[in-house]
Amino acid sequence: MGKPKIVIVGGVAGGASAAAKARRCSEDAEIIMFEKGPDIAYANCGLPYYLSGVIEDRDNLLIVTEKLFHRRFRVDVRIHREVIRIDRARKVVMIKNVETGTTEEESYDRLILSPGSSPVIPPLPGINLPFVFTFKTLEDMDLVHQYLQQRDPQEAVIVGGGLIGMEVMENLWLKGVKVSIVEKLDQILPFLDWDMAELIRHHAEAKGVRFHLSQGLKAIEDRNGSGIVQTEAGQTLKADLVILSLGIRPNTALAREAGLEIGETGGIKVNELMQTSDPDIFAVGDCVESIHRVTGSPFLTPMGSAANKQGRAAGANALGRKIAIKGFVGTVILKVFDLTIAKTGLSEIESRRAGFDPLVTFIHPDHIAGYYPGSKPLNMKTITDCTSGRLLGGQVIGEEGVDKRIDVLATAIYHRMDLQELLQLDLAYAPPYSAARDPVVIAGAVGQNFFEGDWIPITPAVLKEKIEAREDLALIDVRSRMEVLQEGMIPGAIHIPLDRLRDHLDQLDKVRDTVVYCRTGLRSYLATRILMQKGFTRVKNLTGGTMSWGYPLKKGSVK
Amino acid sequence: MGKPKIVIVGGVAGGASAAAKARRCSEDAEIIMFEKGPDIAYANCGLPYYLSGVIEDRDNLLIVTEKLFHRRFRVDVRIHREVIRIDRARKVVMIKNVETGTTEEESYDRLILSPGSSPVIPPLPGINLPFVFTFKTLEDMDLVHQYLQQRDPQEAVIVGGGLIGMEVMENLWLKGVKVSIVEKLDQILPFLDWDMAELIRHHAEAKGVRFHLSQGLKAIEDRNGSGIVQTEAGQTLKADLVILSLGIRPNTALAREAGLEIGETGGIKVNELMQTSDPDIFAVGDCVESIHRVTGSPFLTPMGSAANKQGRAAGANALGRKIAIKGFVGTVILKVFDLTIAKTGLSEIESRRAGFDPLVTFIHPDHIAGYYPGSKPLNMKTITDCTSGRLLGGQVIGEEGVDKRIDVLATAIYHRMDLQELLQLDLAYAPPYSAARDPVVIAGAVGQNFFEGDWIPITPAVLKEKIEAREDLALIDVRSRMEVLQEGMIPGAIHIPLDRLRDHLDQLDKVRDTVVYCRTGLRSYLATRILMQKGFTRVKNLTGGTMSWGYPLKKGSVK
Repeated sequence: MGKPKIVIVGGVAGGASAAAKARRCSEDAEIIMFEKGPDIAYANCGLPYYLSGVIEDRDNLLIVTEKLFHRRFRVDVRIHREVIRIDRARKVVMIKNVETGTTEEESYDRLILSPGSSPVIPPLPGINLPFVFTFKTLEDMDLVHQYLQQRDPQEAVIVGGGLIGMEVMENLWLKGVKVSIVEKLDQILPFLDWDMAELIRHHAEAKGVRFHLSQGLKAIEDRNGSGIVQTEAGQTLKADLVILSLGIRPNTALAREAGLEIGETGGIKVNELMQTSDPDIFAVGDCVESIHRVTGSPFLTPMGSAANKQGRAAGANALGRKIAIKGFVGTVILKVFDLTIAKTGLSEIESRRAGFDPLVTFIHPDHIAGYYPGSKPLNMKTITDCTSGRLLGGQVIGEEGVDKRIDVLATAIYHRMDLQELLQLDLAYAPPYSAARDPVVIAGAVGQNFFEGDWIPITPAVLKEKIEAREDLALIDVRSRMEVLQEGMIPGAIHIPLDRLRDHLDQLDKVRDTVVYCRTGLRSYLATRILMQKGFTRVKNLTGGTMSWGYPLKKGSVK
Repeated sequence: MGKPKIVIVGGVAGGASAAAKARRCSEDAEIIMFEKGPDIAYANCGLPYYLSGVIEDRDNLLIVTEKLFHRRFRVDVRIHREVIRIDRARKVVMIKNVETGTTEEESYDRLILSPGSSPVIPPLPGINLPFVFTFKTLEDMDLVHQYLQQRDPQEAVIVGGGLIGMEVMENLWLKGVKVSIVEKLDQILPFLDWDMAELIRHHAEAKGVRFHLSQGLKAIEDRNGSGIVQTEAGQTLKADLVILSLGIRPNTALAREAGLEIGETGGIKVNELMQTSDPDIFAVGDCVESIHRVTGSPFLTPMGSAANKQGRAAGANALGRKIAIKGFVGTVILKVFDLTIAKTGLSEIESRRAGFDPLVTFIHPDHIAGYYPGSKPLNMKTITDCTSGRLLGGQVIGEEGVDKRIDVLATAIYHRMDLQELLQLDLAYAPPYSAARDPVVIAGAVGQNFFEGDWIPITPAVLKEKIEAREDLALIDVRSRMEVLQEGMIPGAIHIPLDRLRDHLDQLDKVRDTVVYCRTGLRSYLATRILMQKGFTRVKNLTGGTMSWGYPLKKGSVK
């Protein structure tokens, strides 16, 4: 190529990153970027926060304007232009002007596809009613925002309890709208395990949000000017505003029709250089599949952070560089009212599906030194391969300090670290920032204790099953008398405070299945150590204690 | 050992951790812990915050009481007992009762030394005056606290601008005391590079703290009831209160006299299992040296977080376990008024001393998405081995989000990650927590750009030298006209805004040494790319831009 011609399809995160990087790699290249919509390079992930006014100025969402793209990067940006066909033999794309309907052709040396994804819209009655919106683009945001201003809706139904649904929920709530969530699954935020998702649901319920789980959308109606949402379970919900947030699908039609390989996940298949099955065509962003570094399998990771990296690599590689993208570990974070919830790697259920036998632990340390003002408890779940010891995933919930711990775990998982190796990390310690034992280090120590054979965990879900199946089990609550009186016990438990356990060993059966618990799992670990050393052979410790139990406790009399 | 007898010398972080872990490993062991002082297991790192009342309740600093140690862990805690001699042949220690002066012997199977460190006290005139204090133990804190209550000092001099000195400074300031710092070096916080330390100094100066650098303490006097501090440079400072914070020395006398091997750093030499040169004697905490994972050499890391890990390992290993401590990366963090400053790995100067040829980069990204309310700029310095690409260290300053980035860098350095590999990390992204390009990922991209040959940095210090040496140099400021008018330019620079650079290439000399700069280094990187591709062969980019410049800018006329 003397003067290479780069054509980019799509001008938001991935496309815009590719265009800017391509220019940095070549002053001579001709770079044309087509965008179907009216906007390029806007802050997709910020859109929900404009609804509530948390982000006040719409202009702040516009990261790089068309004008700057031209002036600074000499990129020929053409909005309202949809690329509708790729002729790979002739190395030409066909473009439709979405305003006039006319078409034209443009040749390319290298093509970069960044068409994004589209919201899933089920073909159900009422789905096109004027108070029903999707929430994906800046245009979508403007429409919802305008509707909020003009119509002042009192009640909204969000169909779908995924990440975007929850973010929109919070921002509508901040705006004073009553919000209900309709979700087909038995939990919100399906990338989390059920136990962690339930904590978020309860938190949102306490704010007044109503959840209708395990029921899909059946229809939406306009009954004399009043919106009604009908669920498959027969519920009828009033709705002045409906947001469809049922997930997204990669936009692959263009690639598919051009005969580019599509992966089993439904995303365009690319190699580490973001090259499709046609080496002159690259693809980035929501439309591609990525390699999950834990499973080694392809998965979809429709995140702006991924699109930016992929676009940067494709922009360089389209000009002959060899910048590899080495996969992702599925890190996700979101704010739900006063809580932050984050996940990296595999969830417990995902790890089972991937064929692992997971060790599951819960811990509840403070996010900073407990004696320093403002310390808040964290709820940290780790998932580890029992066989190899490799850390597979983590989930963290709390008011503060969640993002830090998930980023450390994401970095550890990127490096295939063992759970117990977390203990070795030299993390920053001063009372305003952490405890002498950082939560991540504690998770590592808890893991090491397991692999040293010092304890065996039982999860709340498994203990609950055993109790319900009336399995023979000694269940010992080792908390203080005060805690037991105030909070109640797990049904069937007997109470022996930790510091008195050594005096009661002769009343316990050494060969009976025994489960010990406390509030967090720490004191019951100490109890486990006493019992195991005294010849109790079948002891398990309820990991996470009553703070992870998640089911009712029973108040009653205590000796 | 039928019933092993573990004797522990020192009952604070390392010793207390060892005792508790030893009990978890053996119900049968006899565990005796001797502590010279009156307190065990208190929150050493929290002590400064009690002076100001940030931590209100002294009891919160007492983590595990003697009573609980006995009741829960069956550890025989003996306070006011100083172990004064080890007879390795007889496996016996000699203990002095510091209240009565009597001595006794105690035999051991395994001995764990955790005697900590002592503040350096120079033998200077006036050092024992009643208004002169050290600040290391709970007893020290009580004495200073009592003095504050009773004497209401107006002016304090802190001798030594290290970590503890700065923390005490802030807490005295919060109490309304005027504080001056006397420091022998030409910078505070010597684990930082000078450029980063200066930012902290300026921040503290803006709060009213006075610094007297490059001058050591000469004498302290009581002139008719008024305290006076004299510096080596001849300054005389009024001081109602003097805190000596001149660093600490490992307490190794006991080990040394017993013939245990002492390392070149002055700390007790131990292996990965925390075993000294006598396999029956372990040592942990401030008194030992650790392996620095970047240099592979021994160093001192007197941190509570390290002591806890080491103590846990020693407690287990004293009972036959094999828990290894795999070294540290020198992570440090502290709060100084509104700023957090943190460091991991090697500083620039430390990397040079260790024989590396460092690539030094500065970036100034926002800590969260710039469009989200509350975003604050970070100042991140990375130090990388030019030859191998390996990340050697990082320093971060900012109001928010510092601890997260340093912990990710610490985890990356633990794994010998390359700078450019940071680009690959799948860090948690949502607007309240990060930007689509997290600062750590940006640091990785900046590094990749260097190793791809796309730019060469010049540091402020080197540029300043060149300017002062009047080297021939084209210095180009590519910021906007507005920025230049408001903030001034680096002396000798010409102004060509980035977006007009392409039109002015013919006025520039392609073979002349050229340095470009902007506010952060980003726009000047774009300028670098334009120039390099247009045949400019000697272009460097001022890394960190004017935000890292640190020397005066010159206001003047702009074309």
